Amino acid sequence: MSNQARLAGIFTPNIVPLDSKGDINEPELRRYVDWLIERGVHGLYPNGSTGEFLRFTAEERRRIIEIMADQTAGRVPILAGAAEANVRETIKACENYYEYGCRAVAIVSPFYYKLTPAGVYAYFKEIADNTPIDVTLYNIPMFASPIDVPTVQRLAEECPKIVAIKDSSGDLPHMMRMIAAVRPLRPDFAFMTGWDAALMPMMLIGCDGGTNATSGVVPEITRKLFDLTQAGRLAEARDLQYRLLKLFDAMLYNSEFPEGFRAALALRGFQPGRGRQPQSESQLAAIDVLKRELQCLLAAEGYVNEPVGGCAIKEEVDSDEVARIVQNVVGELKRRGLA
Amino acid sequence: MSNQARLAGIFTPNIVPLDSKGDINEPELRRYVDWLIERGVHGLYPNGSTGEFLRFTAEERRRIIEIMADQTAGRVPILAGAAEANVRETIKACENYYEYGCRAVAIVSPFYYKLTPAGVYAYFKEIADNTPIDVTLYNIPMFASPIDVPTVQRLAEECPKIVAIKDSSGDLPHMMRMIAAVRPLRPDFAFMTGWDAALMPMMLIGCDGGTNATSGVVPEITRKLFDLTQAGRLAEARDLQYRLLKLFDAMLYNSEFPEGFRAALALRGFQPGRGRQPQSESQLAAIDVLKRELQCLLAAEGYVNEPVGGCAIKEEVDSDEVARIVQNVVGELKRRGLA
Amino acid sequence: MSNQARLAGIFTPNIVPLDSKGDINEPELRRYVDWLIERGVHGLYPNGSTGEFLRFTAEERRRIIEIMADQTAGRVPILAGAAEANVRETIKACENYYEYGCRAVAIVSPFYYKLTPAGVYAYFKEIADNTPIDVTLYNIPMFASPIDVPTVQRLAEECPKIVAIKDSSGDLPHMMRMIAAVRPLRPDFAFMTGWDAALMPMMLIGCDGGTNATSGVVPEITRKLFDLTQAGRLAEARDLQYRLLKLFDAMLYNSEFPEGFRAALALRGFQPGRGRQPQSESQLAAIDVLKRELQCLLAAEGYVNEPVGGCAIKEEVDSDEVARIVQNVVGELKRRGLA
Amino acid sequence: MSNQARLAGIFTPNIVPLDSKGDINEPELRRYVDWLIERGVHGLYPNGSTGEFLRFTAEERRRIIEIMADQTAGRVPILAGAAEANVRETIKACENYYEYGCRAVAIVSPFYYKLTPAGVYAYFKEIADNTPIDVTLYNIPMFASPIDVPTVQRLAEECPKIVAIKDSSGDLPHMMRMIAAVRPLRPDFAFMTGWDAALMPMMLIGCDGGTNATSGVVPEITRKLFDLTQAGRLAEARDLQYRLLKLFDAMLYNSEFPEGFRAALALRGFQPGRGRQPQSESQLAAIDVLKRELQCLLAAEGYVNEPVGGCAIKEEVDSDEVARIVQNVVGELKRRGLA
Repeated sequence: MSNQARLAGIFTPNIVPLDSKGDINEPELRRYVDWLIERGVHGLYPNGSTGEFLRFTAEERRRIIEIMADQTAGRVPILAGAAEANVRETIKACENYYEYGCRAVAIVSPFYYKLTPAGVYAYFKEIADNTPIDVTLYNIPMFASPIDVPTVQRLAEECPKIVAIKDSSGDLPHMMRMIAAVRPLRPDFAFMTGWDAALMPMMLIGCDGGTNATSGVVPEITRKLFDLTQAGRLAEARDLQYRLLKLFDAMLYNSEFPEGFRAALALRGFQPGRGRQPQSESQLAAIDVLKRELQCLLAAEGYVNEPVGGCAIKEEVDSDEVARIVQNVVGELKRRGLA
Repeated sequence: MSNQARLAGIFTPNIVPLDSKGDINEPELRRYVDWLIERGVHGLYPNGSTGEFLRFTAEERRRIIEIMADQTAGRVPILAGAAEANVRETIKACENYYEYGCRAVAIVSPFYYKLTPAGVYAYFKEIADNTPIDVTLYNIPMFASPIDVPTVQRLAEECPKIVAIKDSSGDLPHMMRMIAAVRPLRPDFAFMTGWDAALMPMMLIGCDGGTNATSGVVPEITRKLFDLTQAGRLAEARDLQYRLLKLFDAMLYNSEFPEGFRAALALRGFQPGRGRQPQSESQLAAIDVLKRELQCLLAAEGYVNEPVGGCAIKEEVDSDEVARIVQNVVGELKRRGLA
Repeated sequence: MSNQARLAGIFTPNIVPLDSKGDINEPELRRYVDWLIERGVHGLYPNGSTGEFLRFTAEERRRIIEIMADQTAGRVPILAGAAEANVRETIKACENYYEYGCRAVAIVSPFYYKLTPAGVYAYFKEIADNTPIDVTLYNIPMFASPIDVPTVQRLAEECPKIVAIKDSSGDLPHMMRMIAAVRPLRPDFAFMTGWDAALMPMMLIGCDGGTNATSGVVPEITRKLFDLTQAGRLAEARDLQYRLLKLFDAMLYNSEFPEGFRAALALRGFQPGRGRQPQSESQLAAIDVLKRELQCLLAAEGYVNEPVGGCAIKEEVDSDEVARIVQNVVGELKRRGLA
Repeated sequence: MSNQARLAGIFTPNIVPLDSKGDINEPELRRYVDWLIERGVHGLYPNGSTGEFLRFTAEERRRIIEIMADQTAGRVPILAGAAEANVRETIKACENYYEYGCRAVAIVSPFYYKLTPAGVYAYFKEIADNTPIDVTLYNIPMFASPIDVPTVQRLAEECPKIVAIKDSSGDLPHMMRMIAAVRPLRPDFAFMTGWDAALMPMMLIGCDGGTNATSGVVPEITRKLFDLTQAGRLAEARDLQYRLLKLFDAMLYNSEFPEGFRAALALRGFQPGRGRQPQSESQLAAIDVLKRELQCLLAAEGYVNEPVGGCAIKEEVDSDEVARIVQNVVGELKRRGLA
C-alpha cells in the first residue's frame, strides 16, 4: 500500500511542442510547463495518448520526462507515461523516472495485440513486482486491450505498487464497478477519469480527479470544474461541464487525434509545431475550419479574441440540403468531365 | 409542443406474468400493477424491452395495454410501447393506446435491419405526422438502429408530437449532447434514461427520470434514489446508486435478459411464470444460482428473508484457481472416458 | 436424418411487390414467381431478410407463402421463412407451411435481444422437436444473434429435422469450420451461403449453393455462376463472380437495404411498389442516382438498354477534391445566409 | 511501377528465437532461416505481427533484419517489416533494409490511434515518396487502422514504390474489391493474404500468395497447398486447406497470439525460448494442454511422434456437462471455505 497521499486533482496529459525540424522544442516545452502550473493544474502527465508517446523514440520519451521533471522542480507531481516495447524496457523506464523524481508512472495496457484478461494481469503483475515507483494502470479500450474489473481488483489486492487507475472509457457504471470492487480493500487507490466529457459526474460517483486533455488547452476551466464539483456547487459545475463538453467534442471529433488539441494550443499562444503524423490536404483544410470554430469557443470563454468576421450564431446545416448540393456539384463536375 | 407537463420520474418497464399455458396471466398482471403503483413508481411502461414486446403477438400487445390501462384507472400515466411491424401498424397502435387513455407511446428505433440516420429520421417523422398521441423516441443501440444527436434534434424541431427520448445506451456524454441540442428549442421535451446503473448521475446532468427495469423488482429503491437525487442528498443517493448497481448487474449479466428480472420478481411474491424464450438446462441451473444471490441481495435490503444456509460473505473466486480446477475435472472425465 | 435429397442450388429470397395502397400485389407476385422459375433458379425463399419478413404482419407472412406455393405448384422447392414472435407461433407457421407443401422452413436466430449460444441452442431445439417440416438454420450475425460452430454441431447431432444452415456472414473460414464439424456426422446436412459476393469460393470449399438476393434481380447470372463453378470452369466463373460482386455492392451499399434490390427489380420490368420503410428526401434522391448506375450495370450484361445519356466510363471521383468542393459550397451558402 | 517481378508465393512471418536472457538467439535464428528455406518457402517476412515486432526495440528490429539478410544470402527474397515510431524513423528503416538487400518492406497501417482513411493515405504517401525500397501495405484491421479500398486504389495510382498489399482481414470480398480496383491500373501490384484459413480460396479469386504464420511451423504444408492450388488440383488442395485450418485454429485461438505458434515451433525441434509477453499460471497451463493437441495434429501429418498416451479420438466435450461440473466443483470449494 502506498505511503503517499492518494493521487487526486487534474493532471494534464500534455502535447510536446516540436520545432521546425520536427524535434522536441525544449524552450517551448519548458514555457508550456510553467504556464500549466501557473494556471492551476494539480499535476502533469507527459507521454500519454495526447502526448503521442508512440510517435517518439524511446530516447525521446526519456528526454521529455527529464526536461519536464527538471522544469517542474517539484512544484507539482508528475505522472510519467512509461510504456515501452516490452516489460524489461518498461521497468527500465520506471527506474529512470523514479530517479527523475516523478510521483508515479502510468502504463497503458498492451496494445496492437488484443490480450485476454489473463494476459493483461500477467503484464502488470510482472511490472509491479519489479518497479521502484508507484504505478497507475491506464485503461483506454478504444486503443488498447481492456482492463476489466476483476483484473483491476486482483492487481489492487496483490500489488501494493499499483496505486491508481486512469480510465478513459467514459463508461460511468464501469468506473463505479471498479470503485466498488477496490476501494474497500485499498483506500489509498485512486480513480482518475480520462474522459473530460464526464468529469463532473465521474467525480460525483467517487473519482479522485482526471487526466484530461482539455486541461492542456483551457487549464483554467478544467481546474474550475474540479473545484466547483468538489465544493458541491452543482448548478455552476453542470453549466461548466456542458461548456467543456462543447470544447472537448470540437477538439476531438473534427480531426485526427490529437490535432484538434494541437490547433487549440496554438490559439493559446504556443508554437506546438507540426505533428508527426502526416496530414492530407483535405485534413489540413478541415483543421483550418476547426481553428476558426475553436477560436470562437475560446473567445466565448474570454481567452482569445473572436476571429476576423466574428462568431455570429449560425443555424445548423440541413444535412438533406447538403446532400442535394453535393449531388448537384458532383453532377456538374461529371458533365464537365472533371469527375 | 406538448401542452401537458413534461414527462418525469420513474416509469416501470414491467414484465408480463404468464400462466401455466404461457398466456397472459391477467389477474397476476393486475395485482402487479397495483403493487407497483402502491410502491410509488411515477408511471408504467408496458411493452418495453423488459416486457418482451417482441415475443408477444400484435393482439397480445394490444391486450396488455388494455388490461393495464383499465387497472391503472388514471392513477399514474402510462407510456405504452407501440412498435409494430411497420409504420401503418404502429400508427394503428398509437390510435388504440390514445383511446385507452395512455399518456404517450414509446417507439423503439427500427431493429434487425440497421438503418442509417436518414432512415431513422424518416421512420419517426412519418409516425409523428400521423399519431394522435405523444411519442417518446426509444434509443437502445445495443438492440436497435441508433438514434444520433442530429436526428433527435431535427425530430424535436419538426415534430411537436415527439415529446421525449428514452435512452438506454448508458452513455452519459451522449445524453448531455442531446440535452444541449434540444432543450433550448423544446423546454417541454423530456430525457429519460433506461440505464439504471447511471440513474443518479444522469439526473445530475439534467435527465428528468428513468424507465428502469429495477423499478419493477425493487420499486422502493429506484423511487427513493430518484427522490434523494432530486433533493440534492448526494451522499445518500450515491450509496443507494451503488447498491442498485449491484442488483442491476446481478439481474442483467447472469442470464438471458430479462430472465434475471423475472427470477427476482418471483422472490417479491409474484408468479411471473416461465418466459417464452426456451432455456437450456445449463441456463436453468444458472438461474437457480442467480436466485440465491438475488435473495441475498434483496435480504440485505430488507425485502425478503435470507435463503436457507445464509448469505455469509464469500471471498471472490480466483479465476486461475477455477481454470485449474476445471482442467483437472475435465482431465479426470477424459481418463474415465466420459468426455 | 432427412430422407429427402440435400438442399442445393440457388434459392431466391424474393421481394414482395406491393400495390399503391401498400398491400401485397398478388398478380405481380405470381408473375414474378413464374419469371424467376423460368430463368432457372433452383428454389424460392420467401419471407427472408430481402423479403422484409419483419415489415409484414403474421397474417401477411402466411398469405405470401400461400400465394407462392400455389403459383409454384411444385415446379421448384420452397424454403419458407417461418420466424414468428415466439416458439409457439413459429411452430404454428411450420405446420402451415408444411401443409402448403413447402420443402423446408428457414428460421433466423433470435434477434433484437442478443442471445448467448445456450439460448440460441434452446430456441432451435424446442422448434426442431415440434416441427413437422425440415428446418434450415439462418445465421446472419449482422442482424441477429450469431449461431456459433459448436451450436450448429450440437443441433445437427441432436435434431434430425434440422437439415441445413443458411449463413449470411460471408465469413469463409467460419463456413469451413461448420462443414468440418457437421459433414462427417450428417452427410444430408446442407450449407448454403447468403453472401452473393463469395458464392464461387464458398462453393469451392464445399457449399451446396446459396440463397442469394442477386438471383431475384439477375437470376440468369447467379444461376450461371453456380453452373460454371460446379462444372469446374474456374476462369469463367471467376470473371462472372467479379461482375456479380459489382452488382451486389451497388444494390447493397448505396441505399437502405433492400431498396437497391427493389430499384433493380423495377428495371427488370416489375412493379415492386414503394417499400414499407419510409424514405427521406435525401434517400429518394440517392436511389435515383443508384437507379442510373444499376441500369448501366444491367445494360452491360445485356438485360436492359442504357439510360438516356449513356454510360461512358467515368473516372473515379477524387475524395479530397469532393471535400474541397463541399467546403466551398457550404462556405458560399453560409455567406448567403442559407446555412 | 516496379521493374521487378510481382511478389508471389508463400512468405514466412517468422518468430524470433530468444535465449535464456530474453535476447535474440542468433544461432537459432540462423538455423531457423536455413530450415525454412530448405522446406520451400518462397520468401521470408521478419518483423511481422507473428514476429512480435512491437516487443523488440528499434535496434533489435534492425538487427533481426541484418542477421536474416546475411543468413539468407539472396536465396529467397526478404520482405522486411519496417514500421517504426513515426514516418522519419520508418524511412530510415527503409533505407537500412534497402542496403541489406531486402526485396521490399512491409509497413503496417498506423495503430493505437485509429486513423481515418485520409490519415492512412497521408501516412503511406509520405513514406512512399521518400523510400528507396519497394513498399507493401499491411492491412490488419483487428490490430491497426483499416486500409479501405479507395485508399489502396489511390496509393496504387499515385505511388509506384507501393507494389503490394498484405491483407490479414480474411475478408474475401474485400480482397476481390481491392483486386478489381487496382489490377487494371497496376498489373505489377501483388495481393497477398495473411489469413491462412482462406489461402486456397484467396488464390482462386486472384491472390498471388500469402504471408502465412503456419508456414513458420509447417512450411511443407503451406507450400504444398500453394502448389496444389496453383496447379488446379482442387480436390487435393481443398483437403489440405481443411487440415491447415485445423492447425491454424489450434495455434491461434487457444493462447495469447503468437504463443501457440511458438509452442508448435518447439515441437518442430527449435528452441524459441520464452516470449516477451509474461504469461499467467493459467495461461502456461493452457499452453501445456495446447502443446499436446498440437503434437497430435503434427503427428497426424507425419512430422513428429504422437505424445505419450497417444491421440485417440475423443468425443467433444458437452458444454452443458462442463457447466454442471464446474458448478459442482465451485460449490464444493465454497462448502470447504476455499472459494
